[in-house]
Amino acid sequence: MEQSVKQMHAFFNPSSVAVVGATKKINKAGNVIFKNFAENKRRGVFEGEIYPVNPHEDSILGFESYPSITKIPEELELVVIVVPAKHVANVMRDAASKKVKTAVVISSGFSEIGNHELENQIKAIAKKAGIRVLGPNCLGVYDSRTGVDMLFLPETRVLTTGDEVIATPRPMPGNIAIVTQSGAFGVAALDYLTGQQIGVSKFVSFGNKCDVDEAEMLQYLLHDEETRVIMLYVEDIKSGREFLKVAKKVTKKKPIVALKSGRTKAGARAAASHTGAMAGSDHIYDAVFAQTGIFRAKDMEEFFDVGKALTMQPPATGNNVGIITDAGGPGIMAVDECELKGLKVKRFSEETIRKFEKLKKEGRLPKFATNLNPVDLTGSVTSEMFELAAEILFEDPEIHGIILLGLHHTPALQEDFVDRVSKVAGKHDKPIVACDIGETEMALHTRYRFDKLGIPAYFSPEDAARAMNALVKYGLYLKKKRCLEEYMERFLKQKSGKQRSIQARS
Amino acid sequence: MEQSVKQMHAFFNPSSVAVVGATKKINKAGNVIFKNFAENKRRGVFEGEIYPVNPHEDSILGFESYPSITKIPEELELVVIVVPAKHVANVMRDAASKKVKTAVVISSGFSEIGNHELENQIKAIAKKAGIRVLGPNCLGVYDSRTGVDMLFLPETRVLTTGDEVIATPRPMPGNIAIVTQSGAFGVAALDYLTGQQIGVSKFVSFGNKCDVDEAEMLQYLLHDEETRVIMLYVEDIKSGREFLKVAKKVTKKKPIVALKSGRTKAGARAAASHTGAMAGSDHIYDAVFAQTGIFRAKDMEEFFDVGKALTMQPPATGNNVGIITDAGGPGIMAVDECELKGLKVKRFSEETIRKFEKLKKEGRLPKFATNLNPVDLTGSVTSEMFELAAEILFEDPEIHGIILLGLHHTPALQEDFVDRVSKVAGKHDKPIVACDIGETEMALHTRYRFDKLGIPAYFSPEDAARAMNALVKYGLYLKKKRCLEEYMERFLKQKSGKQRSIQARS
Repeated sequence: MEQSVKQMHAFFNPSSVAVVGATKKINKAGNVIFKNFAENKRRGVFEGEIYPVNPHEDSILGFESYPSITKIPEELELVVIVVPAKHVANVMRDAASKKVKTAVVISSGFSEIGNHELENQIKAIAKKAGIRVLGPNCLGVYDSRTGVDMLFLPETRVLTTGDEVIATPRPMPGNIAIVTQSGAFGVAALDYLTGQQIGVSKFVSFGNKCDVDEAEMLQYLLHDEETRVIMLYVEDIKSGREFLKVAKKVTKKKPIVALKSGRTKAGARAAASHTGAMAGSDHIYDAVFAQTGIFRAKDMEEFFDVGKALTMQPPATGNNVGIITDAGGPGIMAVDECELKGLKVKRFSEETIRKFEKLKKEGRLPKFATNLNPVDLTGSVTSEMFELAAEILFEDPEIHGIILLGLHHTPALQEDFVDRVSKVAGKHDKPIVACDIGETEMALHTRYRFDKLGIPAYFSPEDAARAMNALVKYGLYLKKKRCLEEYMERFLKQKSGKQRSIQARS
Repeated sequence: MEQSVKQMHAFFNPSSVAVVGATKKINKAGNVIFKNFAENKRRGVFEGEIYPVNPHEDSILGFESYPSITKIPEELELVVIVVPAKHVANVMRDAASKKVKTAVVISSGFSEIGNHELENQIKAIAKKAGIRVLGPNCLGVYDSRTGVDMLFLPETRVLTTGDEVIATPRPMPGNIAIVTQSGAFGVAALDYLTGQQIGVSKFVSFGNKCDVDEAEMLQYLLHDEETRVIMLYVEDIKSGREFLKVAKKVTKKKPIVALKSGRTKAGARAAASHTGAMAGSDHIYDAVFAQTGIFRAKDMEEFFDVGKALTMQPPATGNNVGIITDAGGPGIMAVDECELKGLKVKRFSEETIRKFEKLKKEGRLPKFATNLNPVDLTGSVTSEMFELAAEILFEDPEIHGIILLGLHHTPALQEDFVDRVSKVAGKHDKPIVACDIGETEMALHTRYRFDKLGIPAYFSPEDAARAMNALVKYGLYLKKKRCLEEYMERFLKQKSGKQRSIQARS
């Protein structure tokens, strides 16, 4: 397996790459992909050698063009193939004679439209030559650190008004790996994460999975230092047994969030005509995910929300949730969602209630604040009150995770409540998630500040509760597998390293 | 009842109003509320007379201040009360002797903290004098057209950096009425709707509901021409029988979307300590909502998403949904969510499939587009293809609603697909909702364009499916009550009037 991991490395950080089908024709896939490499090389981000392959051109974007990969004088680790389906087998034969390690077949026109023979041909050539293949019919790889970028969709597009706008953005470096069977959903995810300022380590779209599949990719990502959370979109899983084995290993070290579509009969029918997925009963997937500790998101939004939470916060060591709010209604919504997900929002311990009562007597919390769980600090809340309440719940050993609803509309609340709460959180190993409601400046600012300080913030109380639910479920899984402590230790080490670097910068 | 409706009118459009507790002290509730009226009057938005009442001032913001409302020389329709709880009864007595029609008690400190006696006092005075009361412990009224604005939370706030930012925005005029038991949730909703550029007709927060309750408010809104959709947040409903009666009447003419929190035991406990709500079993609420045709949202996001859909689109006359997509994965997600909600995503009729096949043969749709439902136009989609596919589904009598997933990332898709689809939709009476995924410029632009053209757009396939679900459920309810045709007629008349005015502007 180690050998295989090493070979897979060439997908993400090749010392040399050829783009077969590179072209000068603006906006063609072969143009966009080669330009991505050329620009990243010029900027010093991509450090390997790059070779355009096109028999009709002498040079492309300043790089000498070769009529075929066999004519490239140097060794070749990776070939990206963007020529029509019928030519792909020939290119693969060239790749075999050139002894390349890896190939990504972007081209479509294979098993997804019934051309199984053509796909089997490629598979056979690759197998014989020991080439690992991603695709066909995929978007390939984007690596935020090495500058590998095979997305053939330009980052910007020009509207009819002449305005250039961001259209398919590449997220900044981060710790989430996106592994997707649907390329279209994959780029949509990149667009979402970029807008939310969430970083990505690697993006892999494997389309028809003629060779490398999700199990192998998980195995690879297990060893990838930049990846701490894996987000997986699938319509089916082919090598079930291998997947089970690998996933169990991975989730002990890194959480996996899955979005598996085709849950209903009609959905499965649609999946079958999309990727030819033989999805099987959805219950089997539920069982597989449960067994392997993979968190199965119920929809796209939960998928993203949970990925964000798992990157930023440690798992919870139990399922008792404490809620702090300055708005009664949203507090109740959070309670409801927690309980519906199987979390507990219990009445606080006498000890904790005593602490709140003391602060109320001292006039440091509002006289009419309720404090049984949720703690409702009411519309009279100040920054200090949020800090005090957070402190009490962080210190309560019976509370395993905190949801903080800080609606900014209350008149006496200063924006530094975010910093104060974050400071308290930094002293503890307990997970916390936040929420502010609204879509105008102050709400966006508040959520942004929380996110920047490492507390994932959400736009609804239910979303915050769902994020906490994933932190609880993952914690309970790790506990059952007796690897919670080990995970925690690693997580907190990484976190403190990150905090030191935040402090150094500010 | 007619008399009562007329009297309630004074809450929203009084010919004269006194603010008792008006003050010069910056950011105090009595300052913000009086300033709202004063500014709206100066701008010609609020057309009534305004009187600050404060015995310690001669004038406030340029208006003569009165020591008590009894000293105001003119007739008074509305009194807004912002003085401490213990003084409210005296003010109410003055209001009675002044024969005012309506009073809004913003002040808190009543039954919500156990002071039932104080609340009963007010109630008794009001009842004897025939004054209708909103509150106590509420945020009162915001009317986007008459300039009545009792929100004591300033629209902007100043950050410690000195930057002024939007904090509690007031939405533009529109057709959604917000009726809420939780003031905090209410302003959060205003913030959300403003950011989404969704307009509001009226906002009513009734807090402890010592007099006017949700039933009566619904009755009033039934007759309000500006309100076409009612969004209701409640923690309990007190006058159950009256509510049932009124809601049944209202939903025949105007859809009601409800968010009822306290669904779980722990949630109900939290609600009890928030507003003293005796929520009762949640199943009873399910039954009440089902009986009255009120759409019960399962969370905050669905609440907003459904409100938007019902304002913009007609209800569906059946539950067969057709899905058009340019991205396979998201198409499957939409199918799954539809089916989970009880909608049908059936294989299209032979006639419709024939139409698609014909276009494929003519090269006007991609050769490998699948067209059984969803129609997957693939990454080769163009604007024209979306238009053609939409046309076919709008003309299919077996399809009752359309979900269009237009992910902008596909390379050949021009932004005018939104206009083309909207043009087709304009020729039919069938509901359509849209989705584009992403949080950067092009995605935001695409969703914004859809919204502006009257097609509600969502950020996830599941959200779009949930919005369609509400349009279907409401349509089926109206059908059962034999008032679908009448509703449709009215809706389409309003829509065509609106479209004419959009055309006139552009």
